[in-house]
Amino acid sequence: MSFSEKYGEYLNYFNSKLLAFCDKLDCKPDILRDSIKYSLLLNGKRIRPVLMLAVADLLNVEREKVINFALAIELIHTYSLIHDDLPEMDNDDFRRGKPSNHKVFGTGNAVLAGDGLLNTAYSLLISECFKGNEFVSASKFICDSAGIYGMIGGQSADLLYENSKEINEDALDFIYENKTAKLIIAPIIVPSILCEGKHYSKLKLFGKELGMLFQFKDDVLDVEGNFDAVGKTCGKDEKEGKLTAIKLFGLDGCKLKCDLLADSCLKILEGINGDIEFLRDFVNFSNKREN
Amino acid sequence: MSFSEKYGEYLNYFNSKLLAFCDKLDCKPDILRDSIKYSLLLNGKRIRPVLMLAVADLLNVEREKVINFALAIELIHTYSLIHDDLPEMDNDDFRRGKPSNHKVFGTGNAVLAGDGLLNTAYSLLISECFKGNEFVSASKFICDSAGIYGMIGGQSADLLYENSKEINEDALDFIYENKTAKLIIAPIIVPSILCEGKHYSKLKLFGKELGMLFQFKDDVLDVEGNFDAVGKTCGKDEKEGKLTAIKLFGLDGCKLKCDLLADSCLKILEGINGDIEFLRDFVNFSNKREN
Repeated sequence: MSFSEKYGEYLNYFNSKLLAFCDKLDCKPDILRDSIKYSLLLNGKRIRPVLMLAVADLLNVEREKVINFALAIELIHTYSLIHDDLPEMDNDDFRRGKPSNHKVFGTGNAVLAGDGLLNTAYSLLISECFKGNEFVSASKFICDSAGIYGMIGGQSADLLYENSKEINEDALDFIYENKTAKLIIAPIIVPSILCEGKHYSKLKLFGKELGMLFQFKDDVLDVEGNFDAVGKTCGKDEKEGKLTAIKLFGLDGCKLKCDLLADSCLKILEGINGDIEFLRDFVNFSNKREN
Repeated sequence: MSFSEKYGEYLNYFNSKLLAFCDKLDCKPDILRDSIKYSLLLNGKRIRPVLMLAVADLLNVEREKVINFALAIELIHTYSLIHDDLPEMDNDDFRRGKPSNHKVFGTGNAVLAGDGLLNTAYSLLISECFKGNEFVSASKFICDSAGIYGMIGGQSADLLYENSKEINEDALDFIYENKTAKLIIAPIIVPSILCEGKHYSKLKLFGKELGMLFQFKDDVLDVEGNFDAVGKTCGKDEKEGKLTAIKLFGLDGCKLKCDLLADSCLKILEGINGDIEFLRDFVNFSNKREN
């Protein structure tokens, strides 16, 4: 099976579960349910769920065992996009080629849709906790990755360095690791936690490097991409005076970083026993993608 | 011990734990930690933690067993206030007599402070889940009370009915039960869940009626209170065209509702074996309070 066929297979499996999950949502009022479904069902790449399913396959963990964790992470990712797009944050009017949540439902409802997604993610995770301590550990890992010592810390630093004249590599590392990499490490590490920490350290490092690659590549796309391909406004980072890797290393410097990070990912994978083909192709896809 | 002495004792115990919790927060950047601590340490009544400690005493559940649940609920309550005060929601510039979080730290940081508090609440709750299934059940109850089938649903309906000409008692019931009562039921029910559901149904109904009493009384205070006593801008509900009990029943009608709800609470308590004195006084305090 080719990489894109396999990706499509993971994607279809996850999307069918996500759709079933959305169909069961019957919270009131309608606008709350509709705003949540609107953002969840935008046509995303679903890289976090796909990575989790791929690592589950690598470690021989059943899909059914990880699917609720995959859903929870996608819910957390989606909440973060809704809040991030708000006028007071990144102020993005488009997401995945469609109007942002707050442009469709208003800012107040977008705040609540985000809050609702985050709560619902934790409802899924806490329900998993009945199954045993390894499920609690996996839930805790996701929670810590998303929280104030993880993604939210990164978002806060991102906001802080906006329009700051200071160009600071340590700050950039902190922002990218926390804002982006931690929520890419989490789906990669959950299957490992569910089978006694198999390849734990290697997978954690792999997730970190892959997360950084994703963020550096996003920076490149923000400069070189266009709306039709990327699905959101490009060139915004510079206009808003954000601290990005482009500012620090230039466009070519960033492309070099991407290649080095991809190499590093591939080297880590070589040290893991098992069928690493899909993950290896995933690394190359991450470095070559145009959206 | 008088009611106010006992209240003070619960309050001191909880505040010392909250302070210790805040002292341990060392997330970066500083503004994230500072904005979280700012709102957590505003001088609140802490009615949810006090109620939880009082019910724990009634049911002979040790304080140490419930304290992290009390902290989590206060964090969730605090996040909801920060997001609720945002310009696009209730647009409140003051809270507990001090400038709202977004007035001090800016709207973007206030969104993140709220998100951070919610995540940190769940970090506390998931950590409790290692202790056994009754702890998972208690965490799940809190999560459901705060989520899209609970508080967030109520907040969404509250927003929806703003400036609506429709005066609808069912909608008001839905809003008050979900927005306010559910997060007052939760701290009352957690100690019961931790001792095999002792007095579960009665305590649940008690929490519901007490929660409604709190909300009706808040409406009365919004009309009759003043900034110095209440600590936030009064008279806002009417100005913003909110669907309130005042609009439906008038000021005297609301006061009558408060008395009837207080009677109902006291009647439920009489059916519970044990030392109900503090909770009985709490009901009367709730009905007579001036802030």
